[in-house]
Amino acid sequence: MMAPLMPHDHRSRLAQAADEARGAGVDAVVVAPSPDLVYLIGYDALPLERLTALIVRPGTDPVLLVPKLEQPRAGDSAAGGLLEIATWRDEGDAYQVIRHMLPRSGTFAVSDRMWAIHVLGLQAVAPEAKLVPASQVLSRLRARKDQGEIELLAQASRSADQAFDRIVRERLSGRQERDVARSLREYLVEAGHDEALFWIVGSGPNGASPHHDPGDREIGAGESVVLDFGGRRAGYCSDITRTVSVGEPSGEVREVHDVVRRAQEAAFQAVKPGVAAEEVDGAARRVIEQAGYGESFIHRTGHGIGLEEHEPPYIVRGNAEPLEAGMTFSIEPGIYLQGCFGVRIEDIVAVTGDGAERLNQASRDLTIVA
Amino acid sequence: MMAPLMPHDHRSRLAQAADEARGAGVDAVVVAPSPDLVYLIGYDALPLERLTALIVRPGTDPVLLVPKLEQPRAGDSAAGGLLEIATWRDEGDAYQVIRHMLPRSGTFAVSDRMWAIHVLGLQAVAPEAKLVPASQVLSRLRARKDQGEIELLAQASRSADQAFDRIVRERLSGRQERDVARSLREYLVEAGHDEALFWIVGSGPNGASPHHDPGDREIGAGESVVLDFGGRRAGYCSDITRTVSVGEPSGEVREVHDVVRRAQEAAFQAVKPGVAAEEVDGAARRVIEQAGYGESFIHRTGHGIGLEEHEPPYIVRGNAEPLEAGMTFSIEPGIYLQGCFGVRIEDIVAVTGDGAERLNQASRDLTIVA
Repeated sequence: MMAPLMPHDHRSRLAQAADEARGAGVDAVVVAPSPDLVYLIGYDALPLERLTALIVRPGTDPVLLVPKLEQPRAGDSAAGGLLEIATWRDEGDAYQVIRHMLPRSGTFAVSDRMWAIHVLGLQAVAPEAKLVPASQVLSRLRARKDQGEIELLAQASRSADQAFDRIVRERLSGRQERDVARSLREYLVEAGHDEALFWIVGSGPNGASPHHDPGDREIGAGESVVLDFGGRRAGYCSDITRTVSVGEPSGEVREVHDVVRRAQEAAFQAVKPGVAAEEVDGAARRVIEQAGYGESFIHRTGHGIGLEEHEPPYIVRGNAEPLEAGMTFSIEPGIYLQGCFGVRIEDIVAVTGDGAERLNQASRDLTIVA
Repeated sequence: MMAPLMPHDHRSRLAQAADEARGAGVDAVVVAPSPDLVYLIGYDALPLERLTALIVRPGTDPVLLVPKLEQPRAGDSAAGGLLEIATWRDEGDAYQVIRHMLPRSGTFAVSDRMWAIHVLGLQAVAPEAKLVPASQVLSRLRARKDQGEIELLAQASRSADQAFDRIVRERLSGRQERDVARSLREYLVEAGHDEALFWIVGSGPNGASPHHDPGDREIGAGESVVLDFGGRRAGYCSDITRTVSVGEPSGEVREVHDVVRRAQEAAFQAVKPGVAAEEVDGAARRVIEQAGYGESFIHRTGHGIGLEEHEPPYIVRGNAEPLEAGMTFSIEPGIYLQGCFGVRIEDIVAVTGDGAERLNQASRDLTIVA
């Protein structure tokens, strides 16, 4: 049964962010339009050349600075009842305004996605301040999803599964990659996403380009096709990859697909609280290396997912961070044979109290399509 | 007759950027995925946590650094035949890699939209360098559009005009704002846009919020509605605003609309090469102030447009920059009466040899809709 969804508790998130800042020795967190802003106060603003910034300081009430013309829009959002909204006008200097809302010096954490123009604007008016990425303060909060967030991620994943189940019932042979991509975009929305975010369709040799941009190449009989797509539903992202075969696969495709499937399973089995993120990467990589394809697995095993398509924790060698219950991320090993084909299999998983659960349920077998 | 479109000359743009950098005393321009990157090398990459950066240095060949897994995608783009592509791997440190591609110190210009995480990453490995916004180097190039770019902007504007002409033939009364917004998104794409970018529908009192987020409010008879929408076509942006009346307007709506229409015309008439950007703002503002609504015109008169929805030149008090032939920007004065209604009228214009031309042709009269 589906758990009833609680509204996001922005007040508690703001308080926790201030606590995290204090603990990290950060004097102010300066949050530009970004998933951080949505997470903390529920205000979804476009990043623009005009400065919009939430300031969170330990021991002080938070305040949101917006361009004058966006004051009504900000007030109508969840932020309206939550905190003070200050404004600046187009003919003024936003950085001079924000300077007076910040300590004279100290450590400021700026949201990872803040535009350079604003970072440099801040540095110009606060030359004594040390700037650090806000993920140092906010990642611990954002990476551990609560039950409501995991349910939203599960809903988005189920919608992506539905889009996959639908596309594999169609004929792909003879269609252009971009036509299949268009269908995936539609199916994501029709399955409940608010918007589609990406739609990789890599047929035959194009499958060896992990982030291939679908073009006018016609999908041929006997080819494998990498389908990697996702979108946003109620704020949270989906991201799934399956590799299918158009008609009977070659022995090599079958073999490589089996290696990737076993690598994906090994990584999934490695997930539990306390395990280092890089151990999950290592579990997938060992299977692929032992099969002799190590040089062809040219990316990390996965990335966190939530309000962002990519966010901490990153499942990559060198990241010793221990996994915790509530973390959600992709497991997506791949093998890319230049000039021939590629195979990638990706699920979103959530760390549970003693292991992990998959949020995607679409079959990981090599699906044969027409 | 439509001029045949020439392909964008990236080689010449790269050379000009290096010249501009030398002239500005900039030792390296570091360009992240952004319209700057599309402008310079035709590579349209998503901004992500993985570092992608073009480096342009006076006297040295440009180089593009991409994550290893995106090497094939970058090579398939216009960048492929244009410059060297270097890579870094997920398990490595992109900043250590880029450090060796940059001078030890000096002035680096970073693209205005580069994410803070990358700005801070660069600063950490090049603590002696001074960072400035790349717009200081690239604005002069990008703001003066060539004939091919102006034709692309005109095509995008004509498509936006078509979407407007279509929506006003429909009944708006009784529909929710978000339903009208959905229609505008569809019409933009059906009129030739590759994607819709924004779709403001502000009915009645919501029109007084310039960036209103269309919601479930039902549009009523006798109300005015601000429609501000645009998208991207062949890389270039459209942006048009009209305010319509659902049935017969009140005397006040009629009067305010007339003031805004005259202000928009006065600003348009003020445009010619050599005139300061702020004089165009002043021309619109004087009309509105003289009519007694000065306090209700709460934003600048316009913004440049091209590959970006908003880019230099900004038509705002304090910007003494002289206009030049080939510059393209919006002229969009507005009057916002809190709790009552708002009116805004916006065209995209191009500076010609001796004046300006409007790229939008939709009627600026107060259109009455059902």
